[in-house]
Amino acid sequence: MPRYKAVISYDGTQYAGFQVQPNANTVQAEIEKTLKRFNRGKSVVIHPSGRTDSGVHAKGQVIHFDFPEDRPEEKLRFALDTQTPPDIQIQSIEKVSDTFHARYLATEKTYHYHVDLGKSRDPFKRHYAAHYTFDVDLDRMRHAAQDIVGKHDFSVFCATGSAVEDKTRHVYEVTIEEVGPDELLFIFRGNGFLYKMVRMLVGTLLKVGNGQLPEDAIQRALAHQDKKMTGPTAQPEGLFLMEVRYDGEKK
Amino acid sequence: MPRYKAVISYDGTQYAGFQVQPNANTVQAEIEKTLKRFNRGKSVVIHPSGRTDSGVHAKGQVIHFDFPEDRPEEKLRFALDTQTPPDIQIQSIEKVSDTFHARYLATEKTYHYHVDLGKSRDPFKRHYAAHYTFDVDLDRMRHAAQDIVGKHDFSVFCATGSAVEDKTRHVYEVTIEEVGPDELLFIFRGNGFLYKMVRMLVGTLLKVGNGQLPEDAIQRALAHQDKKMTGPTAQPEGLFLMEVRYDGEKK
Repeated sequence: MPRYKAVISYDGTQYAGFQVQPNANTVQAEIEKTLKRFNRGKSVVIHPSGRTDSGVHAKGQVIHFDFPEDRPEEKLRFALDTQTPPDIQIQSIEKVSDTFHARYLATEKTYHYHVDLGKSRDPFKRHYAAHYTFDVDLDRMRHAAQDIVGKHDFSVFCATGSAVEDKTRHVYEVTIEEVGPDELLFIFRGNGFLYKMVRMLVGTLLKVGNGQLPEDAIQRALAHQDKKMTGPTAQPEGLFLMEVRYDGEKK
Repeated sequence: MPRYKAVISYDGTQYAGFQVQPNANTVQAEIEKTLKRFNRGKSVVIHPSGRTDSGVHAKGQVIHFDFPEDRPEEKLRFALDTQTPPDIQIQSIEKVSDTFHARYLATEKTYHYHVDLGKSRDPFKRHYAAHYTFDVDLDRMRHAAQDIVGKHDFSVFCATGSAVEDKTRHVYEVTIEEVGPDELLFIFRGNGFLYKMVRMLVGTLLKVGNGQLPEDAIQRALAHQDKKMTGPTAQPEGLFLMEVRYDGEKK
């Protein structure tokens, strides 16, 4: 049975997250419903590189699924793209080996997190950025962000409810860019991220930036798994899964 | 009675336009409802620089209203901003002379129009750009756009339903910028624009760009009020009212 890999985008605003759950509108449910129609009423299960929470967005989520028929890639992409709701986009579809797995073989992920610093919340960013109205010191945050980079046990930045045992992750890059006068963009790149890890890191960095936590808070949180050195989980609407990479892919 | 001028933004997606109408959600109704509460249940009427249609956005709409009490400007702005829905933003409020009028005294308006040219529609632009999937020749459109500039009778680019008698308008500037690989931004600046004029001009420019209308279509449409030389009215979601200026204001 041919296996397909797809790169997809979605505006997570209207969804209760990626993963199917009873009585809720989810990205997975929408795509599987459409594939089931294409498959004459037989269920097709899709597998993402990882779930995203309610309100979280994706511009480069990767999924795979097995589909009993050998369909031309662009025709299948077009059909799936146009027959799913307009807040889900199928960017590309390609046939892959049946050893490909969107989750197990992922080697690198990039997340973006947007923060609207305007004194009044920009209506055009209300679903696409967290609103933070306190003063932040960008240098302080940039220094603290460097303590995230490297291979660490990130247990203290993992929300409860995760079934993952090994909580060591390798973060390759954390950068903070100014986007216009009133917006910050946090970029996280690593071999993987724990449940709510990016949002907990952003919440902590903002508190460091605002002076409510010391500049070495992240170093201390990681060294002693000290929850008091962490901030709150930042809002979901600022988070975007931008890219998932697999070994051997060309950059 | 003190008169206030406010600069406001709104995401028009959820509204049946600016102006109050029965059984519909409008920007005017939301703001007036909030001001009425501030005014102990007595109605307050707001006057915009001009209406916007259903789905059209604003990042710099100007309104004025008379309010019986003399309130500190920033306090009034904050109260109105936080008590109106999150898709309406009150950027600034200032007390003005009672001779100020948002509509009659407006001397210049700037509109932006965004077009998503991607083969599949970007979910994050679905409410903020028109989707146009045909090929366009940017040079052809830029040449045609110059025929809009100047003082012309724009009757042929005015939708029916307008009560305006004098349909002469002076357009100072029309530019078309590439924003990223798959997006165009049309900028229109002039002393005023007729009902649906910007959207009809964009619809015509896109048809010129696609070769379905000749490069001199706009010149011929204006010279002979020739409807056949015009394109369709472009979708509302691409349109943003960006700025309204009043004589004597510093640029």
